[in-house]
Amino acid sequence: MEKPKPLWQAICDTLRAEIARGHWRTGSRLPTEAELAQRFDVNRHTVRRAMAALAEAGLVQSRRGAGVFVRAPARLPYHIGKRTRFHQNLLTSGRAPSRRILHAAIARATEAEAEALALPPAAPVHTVEGVSLADVQPISLFRSVFCATRFPQLGAALAAGQSVTAALKALGVRDYTRKSTRISGHIADVLQARHLDIAPGDMLLLSEAINVDTDGHPLEFGQTHFVAARVDLVLDGADFGPVVA
Amino acid sequence: MEKPKPLWQAICDTLRAEIARGHWRTGSRLPTEAELAQRFDVNRHTVRRAMAALAEAGLVQSRRGAGVFVRAPARLPYHIGKRTRFHQNLLTSGRAPSRRILHAAIARATEAEAEALALPPAAPVHTVEGVSLADVQPISLFRSVFCATRFPQLGAALAAGQSVTAALKALGVRDYTRKSTRISGHIADVLQARHLDIAPGDMLLLSEAINVDTDGHPLEFGQTHFVAARVDLVLDGADFGPVVA
Repeated sequence: MEKPKPLWQAICDTLRAEIARGHWRTGSRLPTEAELAQRFDVNRHTVRRAMAALAEAGLVQSRRGAGVFVRAPARLPYHIGKRTRFHQNLLTSGRAPSRRILHAAIARATEAEAEALALPPAAPVHTVEGVSLADVQPISLFRSVFCATRFPQLGAALAAGQSVTAALKALGVRDYTRKSTRISGHIADVLQARHLDIAPGDMLLLSEAINVDTDGHPLEFGQTHFVAARVDLVLDGADFGPVVA
Repeated sequence: MEKPKPLWQAICDTLRAEIARGHWRTGSRLPTEAELAQRFDVNRHTVRRAMAALAEAGLVQSRRGAGVFVRAPARLPYHIGKRTRFHQNLLTSGRAPSRRILHAAIARATEAEAEALALPPAAPVHTVEGVSLADVQPISLFRSVFCATRFPQLGAALAAGQSVTAALKALGVRDYTRKSTRISGHIADVLQARHLDIAPGDMLLLSEAINVDTDGHPLEFGQTHFVAARVDLVLDGADFGPVVA
């Protein structure tokens, strides 16, 4: 059986989730120690320990005499490289990755999709759309498109919440790599804002990427809108190949 | 002696520059053929030829019976890779590169700059700030920082408008490559907006990059704010190394 969490840890997790959800906004003052002790029905020493853990994690900052304030969250570094993997990417940053599927279907490829996947016009494709989360916070909206003729079973696996890597592996694709990425800036519309828990007009970073199999054949065309306030896109040296030509 | 431009070409260039400057805004209708013929004091055939060239370049679109309209400009693809060179980048896209230096000085490195350049705290650095233009349109604000102890002459060369590549080459640096890039989204403040000819609150893509010499030693720390409406940041397959591991 799992050991129960210490009380201070449970309080810390609760407040962390509330901050992530935006219940306590950046710059706002948290309730006093006395108020939190009353809310959680614990003594002030336990509250103090929870607050120390939050401060350690960089989520809050105490200002002498003024109280404890929510800090602007550090943006998540999202690594774009030869192998860009959502789950691994988040685990590396100590965040819990999850995806919520909004829509999965077989559709006719749009012109851009057919071109990206080197398919004939209007070829059948699996489309999967959803929200990616870090811990409980939405960080991006994704739309991925795959050739439905080549992978007839893929749609069901993705709709069931399997990762792209796992779903493709089950279908015999042992590896795939990033061929190109295009990054642009956009403004969130009402629907995007609702899914991402931001305000319409907030900034999004759009990454449009083509992944290819080991033969260099396009496999996936992905469009991901990241919440600019929550994510930095990072390209590491290794992604550019060795430093000396 | 250079051959004089044909009249239609001169008219096309004038209108192109006016569109780039925002004199004719996206979606607005250009004057009629008759009006333009009168303005430039040419016949309508010459105007038609100029308009055909603008349409060919994707700058305008004619709608039957309604007139000729300014199209949303295609964003400039700015390639980020192992060797990211501003001048070459723009020439590849058929745009004329230029830079306007706003400020050049020797200063003490900030904490972030010293860390990026692997220098002791507050080490002396050359800082160069300016505006990059494609044709006549500002596309980014840059701030570059170099070790002043290693390159005592660099500041003068950069302030005189030399490209980074040329200035470093003159100082014996035969090559340098991109070690890392971090991309984030921001909102233009009043000063940035004025330099970039946009409105405060418009979107910027910030690229923070470290370039290293052939020994892998940090050479340049560059922060570039791109106008999101004018530039896409593009990472090509080659930048990620060969597709097959």
